[in-house]
Order: sequence, then C-alpha cells, then structure tokens
Amino acid sequence: MTRPAVTAVKKVASIGGGPIGAGWAAHFLARGYDVAGYVHSMAEEATYRKVLDTAWISLTALGLAPGASRERLTLTDNLETAVADAGFVQESAPERLDLKQTLYEKLGRIVPPGVVIASSTSGLMMTDIQALCPTPERTVIGHPFNPPYLLPLVEIIGGGKTSPEAVAWARDFYAHAGKAPLVMKKEIPGFVATRLQEALWREALHMVANGEATPEDIDIALMNGPAPRLAIQGQCMAFHVACGEGGMATNLDQFGPALKLPWTRLAAPELTKELRDRMVDGCNEMAAGRHFEDMAAERDRAIVGVLKAVKAARAGA
Amino acid sequence: MTRPAVTAVKKVASIGGGPIGAGWAAHFLARGYDVAGYVHSMAEEATYRKVLDTAWISLTALGLAPGASRERLTLTDNLETAVADAGFVQESAPERLDLKQTLYEKLGRIVPPGVVIASSTSGLMMTDIQALCPTPERTVIGHPFNPPYLLPLVEIIGGGKTSPEAVAWARDFYAHAGKAPLVMKKEIPGFVATRLQEALWREALHMVANGEATPEDIDIALMNGPAPRLAIQGQCMAFHVACGEGGMATNLDQFGPALKLPWTRLAAPELTKELRDRMVDGCNEMAAGRHFEDMAAERDRAIVGVLKAVKAARAGA
Repeated sequence: MTRPAVTAVKKVASIGGGPIGAGWAAHFLARGYDVAGYVHSMAEEATYRKVLDTAWISLTALGLAPGASRERLTLTDNLETAVADAGFVQESAPERLDLKQTLYEKLGRIVPPGVVIASSTSGLMMTDIQALCPTPERTVIGHPFNPPYLLPLVEIIGGGKTSPEAVAWARDFYAHAGKAPLVMKKEIPGFVATRLQEALWREALHMVANGEATPEDIDIALMNGPAPRLAIQGQCMAFHVACGEGGMATNLDQFGPALKLPWTRLAAPELTKELRDRMVDGCNEMAAGRHFEDMAAERDRAIVGVLKAVKAARAGA
Repeated sequence: MTRPAVTAVKKVASIGGGPIGAGWAAHFLARGYDVAGYVHSMAEEATYRKVLDTAWISLTALGLAPGASRERLTLTDNLETAVADAGFVQESAPERLDLKQTLYEKLGRIVPPGVVIASSTSGLMMTDIQALCPTPERTVIGHPFNPPYLLPLVEIIGGGKTSPEAVAWARDFYAHAGKAPLVMKKEIPGFVATRLQEALWREALHMVANGEATPEDIDIALMNGPAPRLAIQGQCMAFHVACGEGGMATNLDQFGPALKLPWTRLAAPELTKELRDRMVDGCNEMAAGRHFEDMAAERDRAIVGVLKAVKAARAGA
C-alpha cells in the first residue's frame, strides 16, 4: 500500500469531541492544515470551539504556521465526511475497548486507502484496538500528553498487525507536523512517559497516605526541585552532566550502591554491567561530544528562562 | 536561646569547597549577603571561583539584590574565621557520617550562640549528624537541589534533638533569602523531592534493563511530556486542573482503579477514603478558590514560556 508523502498531507481528520480531540484539532490547525473535526453530536460544538479558542492563545504565542487559521476547521457529526480526503486520521474517542474496536472496524473501511490512523489512547493496546479492523496494517498508537496542543510528546507504537513502515510514516509525519515523536520499542502498558509519571505519582500517594507529605508538599518539591531542570535535561542527562567529566559512568559506578537505599518504595533493578553500559552509552550518544560544561551552561540558561516564564505566568503576563 | 531575626542576618558561612558549597555561596552573595566560604584547602580556590563565576551569569539574569557583589566573598581554610559573626551557617561537607559528626562537634562549639546550622546532606539524617554536637537544638537539614544557586527548593527537617523553633527559623530565613522552603513532616530517607525523583529514576532503569526504552527515549519522554507542565503545576495540581470542575475527586474516584494497572513496577498504595480526602482537600487548598479554567490558562502561559526558554537555551541565547 502506498501512502501519501508526509509533506503532502493537506487535511487531517481529528475524531472525538473531548479536550484531546479538540486539542489535536487546534494543534494541526496551528501547523497550517485543514482539519475535519468529528464530534458525536453537534451539541458539542460550543465546548469544542472554546477549547480551540483557549488553545489558540498559546499557539499564537508560540508562532503559527503560514496560512494557519481556525477558519480551516470543518466540524461534523458525519464520520464519512470527516475522513473523506484526509491524509491522516487522529482518533481520540472515549477509552472503551469495545467502542474503539467497533470504530476501527468502520474507519478501516472508510478512511482513504493507505492513510494512517493513529489512536490517542493512553491505556489500551493497538493489538486489541485493531482486532476488528479490516486494514489494521495502517493503525498505530499516537499518544499525546495533556494539553496536546502544547506538550510536544507523541508516543508511537503499532499493534501485532501493524506494518513497521506505517509506524515509521507516523513518526515522520508527527515530526513534520511539529511534534516530538517517540517510537516505543515494545507495546508496554502505560508506554514510556506515563510509566515514569505513574512511578512518581504512586510514590507521592504513598507519602500522603503515610503522613510524610501533603499534596502541597509534593507539588512544592516538584515545581521548585527537579521540574525546571527536567524541561531541558531528562533524568539521564541531568545525572550525566551533574557528574562532570565522569558523567553517567561516575554516577552509576560511584552512586550505584545508593540504588539499594530505601529512597522510594520502588525496588531498584539489578545494576548489571549490561544496564550500566546501556546507560553510559546512551548518555554519550546524547552528549554527541559536547563538553559537560557547555551542557551545564545550556541547562542553566534554560532554567533561568523557565523560572522567569513560571513567574510571569503566575503574574498573569 | 535567642536567635537573630531572619531579616537581621548580614553574613552567611558556607562550609565546603565542592559545587554545593560554592553554589550556596553564589546564591547568598546574589541575595546581598556577606559570605564566608570555608574550604578544606586554599588549593580549591580556583575551582570554587569558577563555580561562582558560572553561577553569577544566571544569577545576574534572574536579578541580583541591591548591593550584591562577588567581592563580598571571603574565602578561608580556617573554620573559626569562617563562622565568626555569621548569622547563619550552611554546611556542605562530604557525605560521610563520621566526618559530619566530628564537624558538628566543633561547629556546635564555635558557631556564635543561637545561630542556626543547616546541612546540605541528601542522604544522612540529622539525628545521626548531631550525635556529638554540644548544641544540637539549632542544627537542621537544609537540603538543596542541584544546581543550588538556581533551583529554589530547600527541604528542611530537624533531628531528634532539634528545637522545632529552629526549624521554623530556618524556614523563614530561607524564604527571606529567596528560596522555596519545604518543612518535612517526618525524617524519611531521601526526603520528598529525591524520593519522587528516585521512583522515576528506578522505573527508567527498569525500562532500559528490559529493552523497553533507551536513555534517549527516557529523556525525550520527560522533556517533551510531563516536565514543561511540572514546572508550573506539581503532579497533584496537574491532575486536579486536568479533571475540570470535578478536580482531584474526579481523578481518584473515576481513575482510581487505574492505580491497579501495571503502569510502573511501583505498587500503588490502597486508595482509602482517608487518602482520597487528603488528596482532594490538599488540592482544594492549593486552588484557593481559583476556577480550574484560570489555572489551566496560567498553566498554558507558563508552558509557552518554558518551551520558548528551552528553545532559546538550546540556540545558545
């Protein structure tokens, strides 16, 4: 099956009238696409347009693509109309497997041949969603982070019947459309980002349950501690750069034993040589030869900007 | 024991010549204090001043206090000289209990009466550190986040012999000195922020060990997913605001069962009514009557600024 070139897509269909569906519509409109929004009922239109108007403020501040306009949205309660001529379909229907299976049975028939269909699901597996779909090879997970019109991450993976080439196409398309795509290695529950967030969230709930911290304590700790740094350096590179010349190797070889300390209720994995090397090699690849002092300077510049941005947002600016 | 008023402190002693000690010195200098930096050997001076000069770029960008100057640093290898006339002591010596115990035995004698002594330790308990100190009632943990001259968080807790009033004084002093103090409820390993970060880190190591993600995948997911939002809303308020009118109550009542899903290797706590109510009440207190749409708008403004700041930092601006 031939697909359109990722640069040739003119129209995106966003299926679903909730905040995720409307948020995706806002994103694609801001990137200069025609968007057909499918809603279950036209009674959802006012709410949908409110999400769009709110998103547009931020999208305008970030910079719209040439020709981008909210006027290029067509809202419809007719699924066939929505997907006609679409070069890409983003599905954000409610998180019920039976509903999605039925929907994909239909989408698989009516979406133009070769066009990739991506699901925003955060909790379901594509292998299950595509079970009744007559053209499952072009269906993938394309999971955004809330709010989807602002946070760049999209986690991508196929199901058992998905073509690897469809996964690659989705990655290239999302990148072209201004997103930060992450193709997952395995179909694991929670994907990557939500697993990390859930580990943190569960530890937070444990602390609140044990009277060790209040919800406010949790939030103060995150906002003023790791978060402003995580926006410029993920946890791997944060440790890599903080350890200076020695980088991640020093972190693991020197502080590895600390993994056995009872910091969090999450048991640590065995720090095998293989795991150590994967971490060290991965960080060295990301550093790409840059000196740790340059990366630390970049980090500091970003943190200054992050702190100023948060302060300005709180002041209503 | 009477202490100086937090607003009356003119001089801070920063004990330790590593990046944390020098980073603290930079912070207090930028806030307009005289700082006496104690180093084990004057051979550390060049490295110390390099940390200071690097920090000063960011601190200047954030805005210096009136009269703030690097000239107001006195560097010495004499501990008595460093703490003489100090109104506050921040200790950042190496993380060895025997070393810290011996140090606190001495600090307890030579630091002016009533002056609070705070330890930057990330892994030791004040109950242990203060064991040999003749004046333990004024010793507290004051744990910063790296880099300490930029990230606002300071986690505070006393040991078994610490006066609660010294803890309150430290909280007020850090707040006056431009930090975001968090007084912990219990002396738990890893405190609050590091526990949360460690939960996330261990899940990341598990994923890399299982071939589910590379270090780069982990960092892409964090930087483009939760991080830009966590800088303006901790995880509690992020969920509270994302659930609209229903807030945290909707999150827990509707998605509570998802806690049992195998998202992360960290087992979830039992979602008792007590835990639910603590979470809901805590979020309502933080919201302080603000409408979720206003908080979402504030979040979006901050994320736009965070994304711009990160982009500018990467471009070298």
